[in-house]
Amino acid sequence: MKLLILNLGSSSIKYQLIKKKQILAKGLIERIGMYGSRIKHTFLKEKIIYKNIYNHFIGLKEINNLLCNCVIINTYEIYAIGHRIVHGGFFFMKPTIISENVKKKIKELFNIAPLHNRINYMGIEISEKIFQKSIQVAVFDTEFHYTIPKKAYLYAIPYEFYLKHYIRSYGFHGISHKYVSKKAIQYLKNKKAKLITMHLGNGSSITAVDSGVSVETSMGFSPNSGLIMGTRSGDIDSNIIFNTLKKGFKIDELIDILNKKSGMLAISGYSDMRDIKKRYDKGDKKAILAYEMYSYRVKKYIGISISVMNGVDALIFTGGIGENDMLMRQLICENLDFFGIKLDNKKNNNLLKNNNVNEIQVKNNKVKILVIKTNEELQISKEILSILNVKK
Amino acid sequence: MKLLILNLGSSSIKYQLIKKKQILAKGLIERIGMYGSRIKHTFLKEKIIYKNIYNHFIGLKEINNLLCNCVIINTYEIYAIGHRIVHGGFFFMKPTIISENVKKKIKELFNIAPLHNRINYMGIEISEKIFQKSIQVAVFDTEFHYTIPKKAYLYAIPYEFYLKHYIRSYGFHGISHKYVSKKAIQYLKNKKAKLITMHLGNGSSITAVDSGVSVETSMGFSPNSGLIMGTRSGDIDSNIIFNTLKKGFKIDELIDILNKKSGMLAISGYSDMRDIKKRYDKGDKKAILAYEMYSYRVKKYIGISISVMNGVDALIFTGGIGENDMLMRQLICENLDFFGIKLDNKKNNNLLKNNNVNEIQVKNNKVKILVIKTNEELQISKEILSILNVKK
Repeated sequence: MKLLILNLGSSSIKYQLIKKKQILAKGLIERIGMYGSRIKHTFLKEKIIYKNIYNHFIGLKEINNLLCNCVIINTYEIYAIGHRIVHGGFFFMKPTIISENVKKKIKELFNIAPLHNRINYMGIEISEKIFQKSIQVAVFDTEFHYTIPKKAYLYAIPYEFYLKHYIRSYGFHGISHKYVSKKAIQYLKNKKAKLITMHLGNGSSITAVDSGVSVETSMGFSPNSGLIMGTRSGDIDSNIIFNTLKKGFKIDELIDILNKKSGMLAISGYSDMRDIKKRYDKGDKKAILAYEMYSYRVKKYIGISISVMNGVDALIFTGGIGENDMLMRQLICENLDFFGIKLDNKKNNNLLKNNNVNEIQVKNNKVKILVIKTNEELQISKEILSILNVKK
Repeated sequence: MKLLILNLGSSSIKYQLIKKKQILAKGLIERIGMYGSRIKHTFLKEKIIYKNIYNHFIGLKEINNLLCNCVIINTYEIYAIGHRIVHGGFFFMKPTIISENVKKKIKELFNIAPLHNRINYMGIEISEKIFQKSIQVAVFDTEFHYTIPKKAYLYAIPYEFYLKHYIRSYGFHGISHKYVSKKAIQYLKNKKAKLITMHLGNGSSITAVDSGVSVETSMGFSPNSGLIMGTRSGDIDSNIIFNTLKKGFKIDELIDILNKKSGMLAISGYSDMRDIKKRYDKGDKKAILAYEMYSYRVKKYIGISISVMNGVDALIFTGGIGENDMLMRQLICENLDFFGIKLDNKKNNNLLKNNNVNEIQVKNNKVKILVIKTNEELQISKEILSILNVKK
């Protein structure tokens, strides 16, 4: 049974065709609607196709064509489409087969997650046209965090904001946090492990996972709180917004600044950590400050996570930065030995590339430090199978 | 040498006349400009005077009259007036004798601290008229936090917000954090102690004090971040503001909600912890949730503090709630034994009232838990003497 997993961004589509946990083909369309759009398609090996992709509809049609030319003979072979949906709001606490009613609810959530859910919704509508015979399933990035207790997800603001306007902390990156925490539990052979899963990428968040369950996470009502990110500010004082609005900034201008012109980009001039690392190595002061600020904020959330779980058995690094940036891992783990966190620098600098799990704490240390490759698409395929109740 | 310490609020004036660390007289004017204004004046014993106090000018004149009728014969005996100023901004890193230039700078800070500094400024102007012969000194609530490193005080937003608009984290309650941390260092006989000072009152903040120096604090650009407070929300996701503004809320309306209608008031219906405690004891669910949310937020900041100091030697409770609410202290310290924090419930419930410092951890425990009565006015008087360079 073949499943196609779709993950749409504002100008991109990630896709994977999966059968029995095996990736048959995968790819990424970038710069949709822009000059220089292209498809990275991998079947046996990667090839790059330069092609005008004017919109997401054309993108999804291209994906269908590419798949029909390699792994499948007919579109109908795709049993189900898994859509990664950023925001499940109050409504969705598990993966859900998409109906008109489900679509209506995802639409209602534009209200609290306008940027992301709009794209996700569009993906569903297009997909229903192209993959007409496939079951469409929605898998939510908020779902894993539904176990967070009320004292943690409520803000200390009037209750009608919660009831009428759905304002509470939701948390995101749930699919990734779920995937790596399950991996870690298996690896450690400890179902009751107290884990801190750190998804550090262009978007970043930390989750405290106690006995397999999310109990606290750094993102809140929106994906712009908590950690510093590529272009997002993470936590700021609410009066900064009021202060700048009163100085004449416009609401949309500020939203744009805090989401697209802040974070590592604002500190260092670059949003991609690989670019920043190159400057760090040359002694660039802004790049050094960016590394310091990023790792410092992560440390704070490690402290929060340990406090709310009253302990820690393992830290888990994942995501583009978590998996690949040894300097950042080192800075984060520095001076945390009071918590029992002790990194082995040699192991940290020499990950075994073929390992899905790398252990990098010092020998015989109680608190483990793991680097785990995340695989959100694989997790989505698992979620789909679990609700379709079919033979895997 | 007699010093008069003034602490002005929007409808109140706190005052203390101090000589050689001894309080000669003290008092509080409440409800200035409102129906039912009154003066609580203490000289030898407390008396309450009901009187129309139409504005702060009349208030300060009354204070002068009261003092002239008990401790001093002539206004001129007051050598210096100490003004507690909330925001020192970029400018003031130590107590400062007030000149026209200093006043100009305090005025410039209206820009980032409109509510508080305006009142403080007015206090200076009135005081200069009434206490013409006294030296006027400004002591800043931000001063103690000037040691916080750049990686901690900068927000991850474009640098021009910092340079042009003075937007950074400042921290507040510095006078209180300084006072109790100095007390704790003396008491513990350990200059290098890693302390977490928790000023919990109607306004609340936590500071990590390493070797006598503030290294991190829960308030940021303004006094409405960090912990949940009586009527203030503390930390919220910035997108909550954008979301509600787009729903039609006005900027000033939201500022009012987040500062005056949020916090414990929003959760429980009451802003005073003593009122909430009464309902908690009766099993009121909202009161229980308020206690849970408040203590949970404090726990998070304890975790942050320990993380950034890589350890902790003592927790210090101070402020109205910190000094008097044994239930809150208990909830905060619960389930933190991973950090070595272990409260002795018996000691916690039976503080010795005459002790300025009470120790309430379990016997022989490495991490101390102290309850210390704060005294901001006394600290201000010390600061004044230190800069006036006179015999104490």
